[in-house]
Amino acid sequence: MHQLEDLQAIIQKKIDGFCKRNGDEAILKPVNYILGLGGKRIRPLLTLLSAQAFSDDIDDAIYPAIAMEVFHNFTLMHDDIMDNAPIRRGQPTVHEKWNRDVAILSGDAMLIQAYQLIMKTKSECLADVLETFNTTALEVCVGQQLDMDFQFRNDVSVDEYIEMIRLKTSVLLGGSMKIGAIIGGASESDRQAIYNFAIALGLSFQLWDDYLDTFGETSKIGKKVGGDILANKKTYLMISAFALANAEQKSILLAQQDNINSEEKIQIVQSIFRDLKLDSRITQEADLYFHKAISELNLIAVEDMKKESLRQLAQALHKREF
Amino acid sequence: MHQLEDLQAIIQKKIDGFCKRNGDEAILKPVNYILGLGGKRIRPLLTLLSAQAFSDDIDDAIYPAIAMEVFHNFTLMHDDIMDNAPIRRGQPTVHEKWNRDVAILSGDAMLIQAYQLIMKTKSECLADVLETFNTTALEVCVGQQLDMDFQFRNDVSVDEYIEMIRLKTSVLLGGSMKIGAIIGGASESDRQAIYNFAIALGLSFQLWDDYLDTFGETSKIGKKVGGDILANKKTYLMISAFALANAEQKSILLAQQDNINSEEKIQIVQSIFRDLKLDSRITQEADLYFHKAISELNLIAVEDMKKESLRQLAQALHKREF
Repeated sequence: MHQLEDLQAIIQKKIDGFCKRNGDEAILKPVNYILGLGGKRIRPLLTLLSAQAFSDDIDDAIYPAIAMEVFHNFTLMHDDIMDNAPIRRGQPTVHEKWNRDVAILSGDAMLIQAYQLIMKTKSECLADVLETFNTTALEVCVGQQLDMDFQFRNDVSVDEYIEMIRLKTSVLLGGSMKIGAIIGGASESDRQAIYNFAIALGLSFQLWDDYLDTFGETSKIGKKVGGDILANKKTYLMISAFALANAEQKSILLAQQDNINSEEKIQIVQSIFRDLKLDSRITQEADLYFHKAISELNLIAVEDMKKESLRQLAQALHKREF
Repeated sequence: MHQLEDLQAIIQKKIDGFCKRNGDEAILKPVNYILGLGGKRIRPLLTLLSAQAFSDDIDDAIYPAIAMEVFHNFTLMHDDIMDNAPIRRGQPTVHEKWNRDVAILSGDAMLIQAYQLIMKTKSECLADVLETFNTTALEVCVGQQLDMDFQFRNDVSVDEYIEMIRLKTSVLLGGSMKIGAIIGGASESDRQAIYNFAIALGLSFQLWDDYLDTFGETSKIGKKVGGDILANKKTYLMISAFALANAEQKSILLAQQDNINSEEKIQIVQSIFRDLKLDSRITQEADLYFHKAISELNLIAVEDMKKESLRQLAQALHKREF
């Protein structure tokens, strides 16, 4: 079995090779650029870890793993246009560095390239892998649509928020793992269990992300605490706060949306969140999803040793400080 | 063998069914809208005609045929954003009716849906069909990129223009026919011949389109003659004119770019085109590609009767008056 670091090295080497083959083709330069900005490469890692849980030979899973990273970066390229985001991983976004049309068209090319990579697997798996990829890809688009719609709505419920992050974030983790499982030869029920594992883990991860953004330590999370509050983002915390607040708290929260004193705004909103016990509520919720993930992992019918790296990864992602 | 009208009815019925299944899902409404605007459905027709030349059973080609139409409309949705086009087939474009972000995201969903449709074929063909589709799709994006780049260049050669329209228009016709041939069970050499047939036919079609836009009759082509001239579009005619014109003609052409008197502008540019004998040159060029198409068709190793509808289609598209 490959160690985590081995797998990460394999992934980076394949991504480098992919970019090299793209060369200097005008339409593919932005593809190489966004892939060159780095990132944790979580999705391809999940594909390979999943394949490795079911098979000693992960070769046929490598290109599909890269496909998941290419697809993920395609969504970033198009989402950045929609969000008017100027910066991605400390560098100008593609539509800033080139222009809107380049970001649309290179994104399209990148989605097609993801399909070229996903095809590079055993022919007997192709139909199943593609079907999972198609379903996943479409759900991610629906998630982005919901996220955009939510910006114009004031009545988003917690359940709707969870469904949105499930689609926008978790299903791609789920799809990455399911594709690894298919290629690794997992049974139908194991494919489903590892998919459910990734979905629950993704939800726990995202909720923990929301928690850290508001209650973490700036020195540890690598960005200023309170970003979501300043941006009036409809996170789990904010949505729950509006659902639970009394009339006075609600009017304070509403008033704070226009407060231009950042420090004061963060402090006031944080303190209402605390009064409503949302700091413990959100970590409990994240814990619930983490435990759901672990029980799905326990359902998978392979020896514990094969699942150990998945368990470790889950633990590392859960209750992290950054 | 199905008649042309039968095939067109099959295609329309499947497109209607596809839209019905999409239902009222927010992200898919624009997909249904653009598919509902109509069009000649040339690409799926080519897929089915091609499949039918090699096999009596075209059932496995029907969904891939629809995929080609869905893909084509995906490119229209994104191209319309890039071209800031307000109208498509007499109706508002998607980014006008909704907004830019909807047109980006629904276009992405539509590309994924094209893949869902392309998969619905015999499993033994899947890898070949997908490979052809991927290559084709990427080339169409490169063609659109070249077309955009050309707007900012003054040194585009005729060869570069032909290569651009080959990529932007012809390869999708070629891909549509090759996919039909693969599913119909054609040999490797027949797949290539029918691909080449479609490429040459597409080039002939596009050149004839350029001719009609400048030298056709308004009453027949259904739009005002001279649209390309008014838009200063770099068509085969304009590029050739700059290549062949003497200094005086060149300066007239340049001056006409800013002439706001439409009728005068069209007349002056038309007359320079005629002086340079470009009206006969472009029809000769279109003829050459048409004859190339027919000789590729002759190479295909099936009885003449099986190729008759393809020959008729080629003749109908060539030297049409509208």
